[in-house]
Amino acid sequence: MKARVFVTLKSGVLDPQGAAIGTALGGMGFDGVESVRQGKVFEIEMGDADEATARDQLDAMCRRLLANTVIEDYSIELG
Amino acid sequence: MKARVFVTLKSGVLDPQGAAIGTALGGMGFDGVESVRQGKVFEIEMGDADEATARDQLDAMCRRLLANTVIEDYSIELG
Repeated sequence: MKARVFVTLKSGVLDPQGAAIGTALGGMGFDGVESVRQGKVFEIEMGDADEATARDQLDAMCRRLLANTVIEDYSIELG
Repeated sequence: MKARVFVTLKSGVLDPQGAAIGTALGGMGFDGVESVRQGKVFEIEMGDADEATARDQLDAMCRRLLANTVIEDYSIELG
């Protein structure tokens, strides 16, 4: 089973990298860009676990390794 | 309009960071993990552009700044 895990900064947390990208895009003539925030995506191949088990395991991985839950949110997509 | 842009290494390109994460997860007892690949996600707020224009602009942003198309693939999600 394939999973995608998204880890992004919580909305109140400053994202200087995203802000720099937004400024760069503006400077390149992309006027429509209002804001950019950068995050991470992990593509994880989970073997033959069933969906509920995979989701539990991925949730534990996020809390223990993939995300810093003090400043980051995570979401899990299976399929 | 909100967009998400995913930038991931092409499948033939070595991903040592993803491999390290996979090894770490295995060492933590997550036996089901077969592979991990890490990529980037950009959450971009595009103002009031219509969908076709937004997609064209995002495609240009990826080619010119967000992705290194020699080694990376990108995909765009609008909504």
